[in-house]
Amino acid sequence: MITILSGGTGTPKLIQGIKEVYEPSKMNIIVNTVENDYFSGVYVAADIDTVLYTLADIINDETWYGIKDDTFFTNEFLKELNCPELLRIGDKDRSIKIQKTLLMEKHSLSEVVDIQRRRMNIESKVIPMSDEHSEINVYTDCGKLSFHDFLIKKQSKPEVLDIKYTKVNPSPEVIEIIEKSDMVIIGPSNPITSILPITSMNGVEKALKNSYCVAISPIIGGSAVSGPAGKFMKAFSHEVSSLSVASMYKGFLDKFIIDEMDENLKDKIEKLIKDVTITKTKMKNIHDKKMLAKIVLGEVI
Amino acid sequence: MITILSGGTGTPKLIQGIKEVYEPSKMNIIVNTVENDYFSGVYVAADIDTVLYTLADIINDETWYGIKDDTFFTNEFLKELNCPELLRIGDKDRSIKIQKTLLMEKHSLSEVVDIQRRRMNIESKVIPMSDEHSEINVYTDCGKLSFHDFLIKKQSKPEVLDIKYTKVNPSPEVIEIIEKSDMVIIGPSNPITSILPITSMNGVEKALKNSYCVAISPIIGGSAVSGPAGKFMKAFSHEVSSLSVASMYKGFLDKFIIDEMDENLKDKIEKLIKDVTITKTKMKNIHDKKMLAKIVLGEVI
Repeated sequence: MITILSGGTGTPKLIQGIKEVYEPSKMNIIVNTVENDYFSGVYVAADIDTVLYTLADIINDETWYGIKDDTFFTNEFLKELNCPELLRIGDKDRSIKIQKTLLMEKHSLSEVVDIQRRRMNIESKVIPMSDEHSEINVYTDCGKLSFHDFLIKKQSKPEVLDIKYTKVNPSPEVIEIIEKSDMVIIGPSNPITSILPITSMNGVEKALKNSYCVAISPIIGGSAVSGPAGKFMKAFSHEVSSLSVASMYKGFLDKFIIDEMDENLKDKIEKLIKDVTITKTKMKNIHDKKMLAKIVLGEVI
Repeated sequence: MITILSGGTGTPKLIQGIKEVYEPSKMNIIVNTVENDYFSGVYVAADIDTVLYTLADIINDETWYGIKDDTFFTNEFLKELNCPELLRIGDKDRSIKIQKTLLMEKHSLSEVVDIQRRRMNIESKVIPMSDEHSEINVYTDCGKLSFHDFLIKKQSKPEVLDIKYTKVNPSPEVIEIIEKSDMVIIGPSNPITSILPITSMNGVEKALKNSYCVAISPIIGGSAVSGPAGKFMKAFSHEVSSLSVASMYKGFLDKFIIDEMDENLKDKIEKLIKDVTITKTKMKNIHDKKMLAKIVLGEVI
């Protein structure tokens, strides 16, 4: 059994590879929830939905947001009504969000996600990191912004000075699942806004220390493969490099996988993490994803 | 200036005729709200939306519910997710309901509807009868049912023993608009669940007495033209006939328009309402609608 810690883009790409070479029913994915919030009247758990859609093979893997070949009739008509949506929600995608919103009147987020993944015939467990609501704000040279305002309205352009999110407790299964796993995989997601929110929750770092934990660096040659990870790392006075990521994960990491482009950092990283593997980490197609998945899983397949 | 009291099917048909022969900017429509409620997480004001869509020429006038040529992607996917909607909400139609729900966080229902009708370039004023929430229940031989459960889940089949709705107060403009109008038209809507909820609010009957008030009977030859009006009238120990409708409206009505098929009731009705006009009231096409509109408006065009 393995557990994957995931954000919304890099890790789902890797999951596409892993599910080709590993038994889906033995996979657990713990997903970041700090960016969850209500938009257009529905509860949006963007990273969770991306993971669900990835596992159900319906992800729009051009944008890594929403469902492949979705339509946007509601979204477009809201625009005509002078009520534009901050998030561009597709018509099918909206169903998932409506169901989540309705189910959350009577269930915790982890129960809701479990109902949905079963309904979508997903064999892997998808576990929200927390059932509690976090507020995440980005402090920029344009002032304090909500995470989605920064990401969408401001297109990640302002200089980031700080990021703060409410501290939350892990959802019921998180600790146990990590401890029971033969391997915990920290996917190539944004360390600041996707991974550290998970690992910094009460008890998680301790559980990771007791597990065999492998991470894939989301940084290749000084810049993030996707999204504003670089900007966020700088705000925390981190150099944007795999070495910085290693320093963030060193307390609980057994093995770190970095890109060929970062071979020059190997010696320095090995002072923090004993086992460093160099490979091609950029995933352009399913072949790349499967190759990387095999290297990551190594011992367990 | 004229004011029309409306429910969701018969009166909108007549409105289609009236707006062809009368200046839309001089029309006010006061719409029933007792059936409004939350469905699928959005606020549904079915009769109001039907009136808005009718005025904007986008009504689905086969079902008299929702927007013409709408798609149902969200609704269909909700079904696949085992989360079927009680109301079949179309994708564009859902936009109107989402906007209403969001605007209602900061505005009264009448303000919300006014924002929406302006946005849809509707010149006529559309006024919800009340800004307060009513609960409407149908007491049947199968027990107490919510209005929509009776109408949709039970397809109006159970025997109706009683109908009860919360008493609410008129929204700010209702009384003034009625008093200022040259003519108030009570459309051929369900008297029990569409018209009486409006006329029984505090101050409305008095305002109607001070106005010139014309009604079109929703009953032709012993049965309702559409919907469960007949069933509801029986529950109130009313015979299903234009005579019964006349007896309900007699306190404030100046003129009553009945169908040719009910000519035999003319003498009896004239004992309740002085001015009775006999004409063809069934509206099968736009020609019928315009003809009836001209007869109704008579004095004001």
